Amino acid sequence: MAEQDGLTVKKNEDFSEWYTQVVVKAQLADYSAVHGCMVIRPHGYGIWENIQKIFNVRLKELGVKNAYFPLFIPESFFKKEASHVEGFKAEVAWIERKDDQEERVAVRPTSETIMYDSYSRWIRSWRDLPLLINQWANVVRWEIKQTKLFLRTREFLWQEGHTVHETEKECDEETMRMVHEYKEFCEKQLAIPVIAGKKTESEKFPGAVYTTTIESFTPEGKAAQCGTSHNLGQNFAKTFNITFLGRDEGMHFGYQTSWGFSTRLIGTLVMIHGDDKGLILPPRITPVHVVIVPIIFDKTKDAVLKKAQEVKAMLEGYDVVIDDRDNYSAGWKFNEWELKGVPIRIEIGPKDLDKDQVMMVRRDTGEKEAVKTLTVRDTVDSLLEDIQQNLFNKAKEFLEKSIVRPNNFTEFQKGIEERKFVFAFHCADETCEADIKNKTTATARVIPFEQENVQNASCIHCGKKAKYSVYFGKAY
Amino acid sequence: MAEQDGLTVKKNEDFSEWYTQVVVKAQLADYSAVHGCMVIRPHGYGIWENIQKIFNVRLKELGVKNAYFPLFIPESFFKKEASHVEGFKAEVAWIERKDDQEERVAVRPTSETIMYDSYSRWIRSWRDLPLLINQWANVVRWEIKQTKLFLRTREFLWQEGHTVHETEKECDEETMRMVHEYKEFCEKQLAIPVIAGKKTESEKFPGAVYTTTIESFTPEGKAAQCGTSHNLGQNFAKTFNITFLGRDEGMHFGYQTSWGFSTRLIGTLVMIHGDDKGLILPPRITPVHVVIVPIIFDKTKDAVLKKAQEVKAMLEGYDVVIDDRDNYSAGWKFNEWELKGVPIRIEIGPKDLDKDQVMMVRRDTGEKEAVKTLTVRDTVDSLLEDIQQNLFNKAKEFLEKSIVRPNNFTEFQKGIEERKFVFAFHCADETCEADIKNKTTATARVIPFEQENVQNASCIHCGKKAKYSVYFGKAY
Repeated sequence: MAEQDGLTVKKNEDFSEWYTQVVVKAQLADYSAVHGCMVIRPHGYGIWENIQKIFNVRLKELGVKNAYFPLFIPESFFKKEASHVEGFKAEVAWIERKDDQEERVAVRPTSETIMYDSYSRWIRSWRDLPLLINQWANVVRWEIKQTKLFLRTREFLWQEGHTVHETEKECDEETMRMVHEYKEFCEKQLAIPVIAGKKTESEKFPGAVYTTTIESFTPEGKAAQCGTSHNLGQNFAKTFNITFLGRDEGMHFGYQTSWGFSTRLIGTLVMIHGDDKGLILPPRITPVHVVIVPIIFDKTKDAVLKKAQEVKAMLEGYDVVIDDRDNYSAGWKFNEWELKGVPIRIEIGPKDLDKDQVMMVRRDTGEKEAVKTLTVRDTVDSLLEDIQQNLFNKAKEFLEKSIVRPNNFTEFQKGIEERKFVFAFHCADETCEADIKNKTTATARVIPFEQENVQNASCIHCGKKAKYSVYFGKAY
Repeated sequence: MAEQDGLTVKKNEDFSEWYTQVVVKAQLADYSAVHGCMVIRPHGYGIWENIQKIFNVRLKELGVKNAYFPLFIPESFFKKEASHVEGFKAEVAWIERKDDQEERVAVRPTSETIMYDSYSRWIRSWRDLPLLINQWANVVRWEIKQTKLFLRTREFLWQEGHTVHETEKECDEETMRMVHEYKEFCEKQLAIPVIAGKKTESEKFPGAVYTTTIESFTPEGKAAQCGTSHNLGQNFAKTFNITFLGRDEGMHFGYQTSWGFSTRLIGTLVMIHGDDKGLILPPRITPVHVVIVPIIFDKTKDAVLKKAQEVKAMLEGYDVVIDDRDNYSAGWKFNEWELKGVPIRIEIGPKDLDKDQVMMVRRDTGEKEAVKTLTVRDTVDSLLEDIQQNLFNKAKEFLEKSIVRPNNFTEFQKGIEERKFVFAFHCADETCEADIKNKTTATARVIPFEQENVQNASCIHCGKKAKYSVYFGKAY
């Protein structure tokens, strides 16, 4: 790899530049000619495809079905739900009208309204409930801030689940089920530890009764929202007239949830697991599990390549690449695959043939060991498990280390300045929360589900009686 | 199923109404509140997901990688390729500008320009070639004609492959490889027989050197384009400056192809295979292979449901639904699953328990047979194969029956009036082709790859020396 293709900054020296270099040089994504939009390149899109595969299996188990709704949303739909239009109006992209007879339409920033209009026609009776539909789609929010690949772009990819239930209780259960699914998904598959809880009133989704969230924390000292699940109550059902004939023969409004995560997860993944050599991909979502680099000399070339094929065949079920490109040195290839974050590298040279072994290098620790050919499969199996667990443990340790618990507002401000995840008690007053934001630029990220000792606590800012504990931090 | 939920017209009486009823009542798709856009419901989206799964496996084998490019295209990009902008300008949807400093952007009608801008930055040397990238995406063409679900909507889903090659020969081979892949895919997976060939100059893709296509023919007497593969030559490479350092150390422009198919395939599938009871789904792409309907009486309910579970367990690997809903009669369920086109229905009643058998009904012929429990798996395996083959054979027979070979232009006109697929020799003159279109509303659909006896033939319309034989027909 040419010098200019490797990373030129260290993660702890200039995090923001390091992040962009990893994303671009590992070929996860690239800037595009369209302001604010990105290209997701095959290596990055492969991660998204794996996320989709795993989550689709889970959705099927949960009885959720995929569908696809229009990209466009009529202007009148936005206006129907007052807080919804207020929440999105600044960042909606509108289509130029060709025909004044037709209603003005926007590109979807989210699909509640267009989906619920259909729902109102599909649902007739309690027998049609619960209705559990998910869509994988592109959405557009016309951000004016500077683009950050995966984290802040005008268009991004996501999944959005939209459900309708008979009762408030079921709706509440679904909201909570999905936020816990998200937590499990992030922690198990992406090795990203998160804190699950509720959003404050001022941070909740426009139109929701309440919003739940999972939040991770990056080495840049910012909270990254990794998924949200909203209890919409009957708010949208009343606006879009989603009614059903109940078991009691009366007409009722449905209770609804919506929940989603996006390609932002990929950005968070990069930030949390990467190092000075580049990306480190958790084995469960990597597009390539193992790269085999044959060390090629003229005399032993055929034998080494044959051995590489044999080893690949032993690893059926994994995505394995044999990098047999000419014109690149072995060292160049090592650097490239490390930059791309592939969990395991296997090197096979002439000496290894004699010893009936391969050299195996794990990306996360750099540890290298000789492995007898016969045990390659078992070693890869356990190494991938180990790497997955190790990435999670390291990230978990970092998260715990990042949390501070100030005793007063001066300590609170110091925590935010030092880019910590600040855990404090709060009175739940929106003005008080806004004051904190004005003074520190930090926002209330998540009210953890587990609440302790709130009874005797007072607000970290105004000193009034506390309603809950909450994590504050800067955010993306 | 209530009377109003079943089909109220026959396929051969009012095809257009029949088609819409099948699509809507089988819950494949629905109209939406946005003019010209449709909702793809879970049953229809499940077909698309299966199409994606199968085609993705094939793409991987061919070395093609998936990626994702921006939804928006800068105005200046359209203008760079003269015939491209001419071909799309009428149906492009533009975004209202929020900021006069920013360039006007359109919603993609196709992605050549935005992708090739990136390609020009990614490709440096012959080592980077061939570049083989595919994207699954939504595209928008602001059609003003009446909406027809799946066939003509302003937004639709598709895949678009975009490749770059070192040589003209490789580019030509790739173009042809993909049109043959499409033919194989349609015939093997969707059981839709097609005619593969080239488009005439006036029907080719705006910006292409030549366009290849596969065309099927529906019972409505119209040709349906099922996929196209374009040889773009160096046209776009020159416009977007896609150059590479060649093996000869000189700089060269790349040779390019693009190829795609869309959700239109689902509409064609419905038209070709459906009958007066509704949809018939080819086993290889159906979201549900087998529906098990337990015939429930109070006394035997538990035993029958247990048996249904046992049978389902025998069918692992297939998508199997047990329809154990209360409040719907068995007959109602039979109708609904027939409407939805599920290939095999298994009925299990109390009498079947005694005989250790199930009743098995195939959707395509309606044939019903008793099958011993022990042989359920084998019977389903072979029945699904048989249904797949039978659907193809029937469609193939219909296609062949639809082709006429007129001896003169009067017979040609009669053929078009009778909604046949008219095979004739043509002089290749664009004015002559336009005259035919004006006189008959039929267009030149496909110049089949296999050309015979052209030497001595004359043009069906103007009588001049023929250049090729071509299928004419009305089209969607």
